Order: sequence, then structure tokens, then C-alpha cells
Amino acid sequence: MAETGAVPPDTGRRLGRVDSFSDGLFSIAATLLVLSIDVPNVPEGDLNGALDSLLPSLLAYFISFAVVGLFWLRHHEFFGRLRASDSRLATLNLVFLSFIALLPVPTELLGRYDNSAAPVVIYAVFILVLSALLRALFHHARSAHLLAPGQEIPADNAGAAAVWSAFALSIPLAFVSPDLGMYCWILAWPLRMVFARVFGASAP
Amino acid sequence: MAETGAVPPDTGRRLGRVDSFSDGLFSIAATLLVLSIDVPNVPEGDLNGALDSLLPSLLAYFISFAVVGLFWLRHHEFFGRLRASDSRLATLNLVFLSFIALLPVPTELLGRYDNSAAPVVIYAVFILVLSALLRALFHHARSAHLLAPGQEIPADNAGAAAVWSAFALSIPLAFVSPDLGMYCWILAWPLRMVFARVFGASAP
Amino acid sequence: MAETGAVPPDTGRRLGRVDSFSDGLFSIAATLLVLSIDVPNVPEGDLNGALDSLLPSLLAYFISFAVVGLFWLRHHEFFGRLRASDSRLATLNLVFLSFIALLPVPTELLGRYDNSAAPVVIYAVFILVLSALLRALFHHARSAHLLAPGQEIPADNAGAAAVWSAFALSIPLAFVSPDLGMYCWILAWPLRMVFARVFGASAP
Amino acid sequence: MAETGAVPPDTGRRLGRVDSFSDGLFSIAATLLVLSIDVPNVPEGDLNGALDSLLPSLLAYFISFAVVGLFWLRHHEFFGRLRASDSRLATLNLVFLSFIALLPVPTELLGRYDNSAAPVVIYAVFILVLSALLRALFHHARSAHLLAPGQEIPADNAGAAAVWSAFALSIPLAFVSPDLGMYCWILAWPLRMVFARVFGASAP
Repeated sequence: MAETGAVPPDTGRRLGRVDSFSDGLFSIAATLLVLSIDVPNVPEGDLNGALDSLLPSLLAYFISFAVVGLFWLRHHEFFGRLRASDSRLATLNLVFLSFIALLPVPTELLGRYDNSAAPVVIYAVFILVLSALLRALFHHARSAHLLAPGQEIPADNAGAAAVWSAFALSIPLAFVSPDLGMYCWILAWPLRMVFARVFGASAP
Repeated sequence: MAETGAVPPDTGRRLGRVDSFSDGLFSIAATLLVLSIDVPNVPEGDLNGALDSLLPSLLAYFISFAVVGLFWLRHHEFFGRLRASDSRLATLNLVFLSFIALLPVPTELLGRYDNSAAPVVIYAVFILVLSALLRALFHHARSAHLLAPGQEIPADNAGAAAVWSAFALSIPLAFVSPDLGMYCWILAWPLRMVFARVFGASAP
Repeated sequence: MAETGAVPPDTGRRLGRVDSFSDGLFSIAATLLVLSIDVPNVPEGDLNGALDSLLPSLLAYFISFAVVGLFWLRHHEFFGRLRASDSRLATLNLVFLSFIALLPVPTELLGRYDNSAAPVVIYAVFILVLSALLRALFHHARSAHLLAPGQEIPADNAGAAAVWSAFALSIPLAFVSPDLGMYCWILAWPLRMVFARVFGASAP
Repeated sequence: MAETGAVPPDTGRRLGRVDSFSDGLFSIAATLLVLSIDVPNVPEGDLNGALDSLLPSLLAYFISFAVVGLFWLRHHEFFGRLRASDSRLATLNLVFLSFIALLPVPTELLGRYDNSAAPVVIYAVFILVLSALLRALFHHARSAHLLAPGQEIPADNAGAAAVWSAFALSIPLAFVSPDLGMYCWILAWPLRMVFARVFGASAP
């Protein structure tokens, strides 16, 4: 049902509403991450000790906020280049958004269990799925000619390769040590610069 | 109070705000579905077992996310075809949205209780109510001449008939077996294609 | 700081953002009402009994959803008639919105405690405060000349008088019987029509 | 990556989406503050006593709602003066928003623990961090020439100095008495007027 011909007059408005639904969802998902932090409910005397145990949850919160923020920036750039939508794009977008909205669950697991591999593995798989779904959105928009004339989605193969390497590598590492798995994610930043040089691609 | 004559100059703006309230509500309702998933809070050693018990909740989450997404697409298509609103439309829309916003409750019931008929029956009744309310919105817009000139709401009788058949049928089946009731919902997809052929209607 | 002279060029945009903040808040407050319903977490065999105890919460949910919806309609009509904003309007609006956002608390109390006067009294006071704050917004907009030329806020004195009578009367009645207090709220609808005839005012 | 030259044609739209993401986040953060209030779940006979214990939570709610509202007003004024965005501004904005979205946590601590210094100190540090991040946003927008021609961010050095003095002073005071620390925050209002006279600056 791709609208490859003339764009109907209300397409701009429709795209605007998809934008607005997606934006709303991104900002709500980002804000709901705060609910993954269990505010201590202890006798007043034990408060200081209980506050220490908030630190892993806070770290998980900031990691997930950055994830939502970065995916939102990419998604927003992408939607800004579309000239039309079709039903497959809308469906793919909903699937992508359903995973964005689910992010508080792996975040809460990550913040609550320090010494298990499972939360790190689940979180890494989650990021890989989100990244693959965004790629699928880009791919469909290109092949169904939904981009506005003269627009191209910045490939950012360096960024994608960096995210994939760092998060895929963290899965086996998490079984050695959950902390080691999480540290591995930080590698995405330097790796991106390395890959950008190798590929000669411009980072957005 | 239907404005059947000339549309006052601020109607576009007003419709825009109803759109924005509705969109906001849809995206928040979709995102709040994540709260229907109880993230396990168990000793670290029992984590893997507890994660297995997340699966029914995750399934219920994705079903409800699809429900919100599909109703949002229909609602958004509908509002895009209006030229004006009236107070009955606003009221009907609020009633419809109050059921959309309530969806986390049947979703949580569905994910938490595997072996009872009640959650499946409640969920199916919920979908039938949502579907009937959307039909009532369409019906009122048509009879009060609120549609923009030349616009018609795609009937999608095939889709409605498929949803009604599958969800109504699931109610007696849930008393035989809750799982059987849920599987029955999947029938909505093939049924829609069958009905579309029978009715010769185009599916949106 | 009322801008009574020429409206600066970016006022429309600013008003748009206040609109958007307010709309967002209204739709989130409406959606968060669902969190005031405690989804039963009982052994599977006790589910049917536990579902019965959901009914007062559901009733409270629909009452509060209607409250948010009606206040939103009035607020939205009001903002559609403004030509400019000033800092006092922004402050009053924030105070009003802080009470809208607080509505889940009296809603949860109302749904959870059936046989106490306190929740009914708190809820009624809440509605009176919201109604007074909205009146204060209207009053300030008029006296600071913030309305667009030729625009007037529909007085709806009948509606206000009906809400005030029904909710003020419910406070002493709640001490006789909490249920009687709640039934009294329903009087707002017929009272509005009576007052509308008496005052000769048009209901919006 | 500052776009100091000609503004690309889609910058307005992009800024609009950043606005919309930020606005959404502010209104959701404001609304989620209600979740920091623990609605009492006690036997019906103990309700009146339990309602008294809601008061500190309500106070913390209104303080935080005012904080979100005031920061939103400043942020909204600021974004209204931008002609373009760059990636550093987007990143700083996300960091700022991640702290806005985190506000329910210190709010819940403040409302739950009456007699400890830690919640007051955490809350004060939080406000200082938010204030510093907003200043950093302003500073970057100025130095990267992102402001629209002829626009200047109102310095409000008086306001900033008042907030900094009152909240920084409250930290040592909280160790003397948590209540004294909180009362100290109220000083921000009179201090602002004093500083405004001293600096001769106009308060927004």
C-alpha cells in the first residue's frame, strides 16, 4: 500500500500525527524510567544505608535515558526526511515503539540485580533488537520510496557497527562477570570513532 | 449542537487540540501498559525462574500495545476526515478514551492469571466495547454531517466483523479453556481477509 | 506584567506552548487515573471475589475521568479565546494544573474506602477548589484584557452554580452517609438545567 | 557542529520537535509527581490518622510541581528565542531533562522522611544541578550563536543568585534541623527581590 505516486494532500498532517504519537511515546517512556527506581521505604534510621543501594538503579536510569534520547534523535531525524507514510511503515513504527515503551522493564532488572548475568544479557539483546528495528524502518522507507526528494538517511554505519559490536560482545562477557558486560557497553563510544575513521563515514 | 452550517474560523484549531489530547492519551495509555508487568523482586538466586513467569505478562503487553496502536490508527484516520466537532462527538470521544486509558487493568489481569476464564472474558468484552464506541463515533460524525466535504470513513465492515466474531466467540471458549479463548483472538486476522473477500470491501 | 498593548509577534507561539503543556498534563492526568485502581493480586481461586471489589474503584475512575474531561473542555475553550498571556495567568494556570495532576489521590481514596466520610469530603472540596481556580483564571483574563478582540468567556453561571450546590451540599451529607454524599453529586446535571432556565443562560 | 551559517529549511520543524519532546517530558514529569504520594492503605477505622501523614508528601508535591513549572517557564522562554539547534545543545538538553524526569525520587524522599538531613540535602543539590544545567544551556546557545537575531536570554542573575543562595545555604542548615533547611528555601523569593534591586535586573 506504499504511496509511491502523488502524495495525497493530507499526508503532511498524517505524518504530523505519527510524529506526535511517537514523540509523546518517547517522552513518556523516558519519564517512566523513573519508576524503575525503588525509593527506599525503610525506618528513618536506616535511610543512609538504603540510599547507597539506590546507586545501581540511578546508573541504570541514566543509561536508559541516554538510550531513549539517542534513539529518539535518530527516529526524529528519520521522520523529518519522510514525504509519506504507508501501512507497513506505521506497523514497523508501532513495533519499534512497543520496545521503546518496554525499556523500563530491563532497566529495573539491571538496577535491581547486581550479580547476575541475566539482566545484562536481556538489556544487551534489547538494544540489539531496537537497533535492528530502526534499521528495518530505514530500509523500508528507502525501498518504498517514502523519503522526501533529495533526502537520504545518514547511514551512520560506524555508529551501528559500534553499537552492535559493543552490545553483542557484552553478552558472553556478562557470563564471566556482569560488571564486565556493562563496562563493555562504554566501548560503543570509542568504537564509533574508530569505525568512523575506518569507514570514512560522517557521524551525525 | 452540531455545526452543520459554516464552520467557525477557530474550528481547525479546536479540532487540533482534540487531536492533541487524544494523541497524548493514546501514547500515554500505550506507554503505561508497561506498568502491568510486575518486574520480579526476588532473591538474586531465584531470578532466572522468576523471569520465566514474566512471559504471560509480556504477551499481554504486546497484545494490548497492538490494540492501542490499531485503535489509534483508526481514530487518527477518522479525526483526519472531520471538518468540525460538536459536543456529542466530544463526549463520545471522552468515553472512548476513558476505556482506552483503562486498558492496563484488563492487561494486568490477563498477564497475571493464566488459568481463569474471567480475565479472558473481561478482555474480550473490553475490546467489544471499544469497537462499539468507535463505531458510535463514526455513526454520529456521519449523521451530524461533521465529515469534511468529499470525505467518507472507510467502512472496514470486514475488519469490524472479524474482530466481533473472534472476540465474541472467545467468551464461551474461555470457559472451556482460557488459553483456547486467547488463541481464538488470533482468528481476527484470517477472518478479516475472508470477510474482505466475501464483502468485497477494501481493508485499510 | 499584563501585555495590554500590541501583542508581540511570538505570543501565538508562546500561547501554543502553554496550550501544549496544559493539554499534555490533562491527558496524562486522565491516563494516570488508571493507577488508582488496585488490580487484585490474589491466589487464582479468589479472583472472582476480588474482581467484585474493583467496582468502587472503577466508579471512582469514571467519575474522575469525567471531571478531567469536563475541566479540560472548559480550559480548552478558554485558552482558545486568549490573545495573550501574562505571568500571573501562567502562575494561576500552573496552580490549577497542580490540582488537576493531584486528582489520582482523592480518586484512589474514594475507590478504596467505602464507608468513611473523609474521602467524599476531600473529593468534594477538591472539585470546589478546581472550580474556584478556573473561575480565577477567567476573572484574571477578563480584567487584564487578555481575551482576543470580540471574544467573551461563556459565563456558564448555571453550570458553576450547579456544581457548587451539588458538591457543597454533599459535604454535610457525607457525614450522614458517604453513599448519600456521592449520590448528591449526580444532582449537578439536573440542577444545571434548572439553573439554566432560571438564569436564562446558555449551557456550553 | 553549530550551524552558524544559513539555517537549513527544516530547522524550524526540528526545533518544533525538540520543543514538543521537552514539553511532553515536563508535563509528564509534573504529573508523575503525584506518584510520590503514598495513598494510605489502612483499615477503614485508621483512615483519619493516616490522612494526616499525607501532609508532608503533599507539601513536597507542591514544592516539586512549582520547581517543574518554574524550570519549564524558563526553558520555554529560552527555546522560543533559538533560531537553530546543534548536537551539543540537544545533548545538554537531554541531560537537563533526565534530571527533570528524576525529580519524583527526591520528592518522594522529602515527603517520606521528616527527621533526616539527607532528603533535604539531596533535594537542594538536585535544584542546584538543575539550575547549573540550565545555565549551561543558555551559555552554549549564546557562544554557539544559536539565538534568533535580536534575541537575548534575559539574564535573571537576581533569580539565579537567589536560588543558589537559598538552596546552598539550606545544605548546612539541614544538618542542624531538616525543617530549618526546608524553610530556608522560601528565602529564594524575598532574596530575588533584594538581588533584583541590587543588580538592577528585571525579573522575568
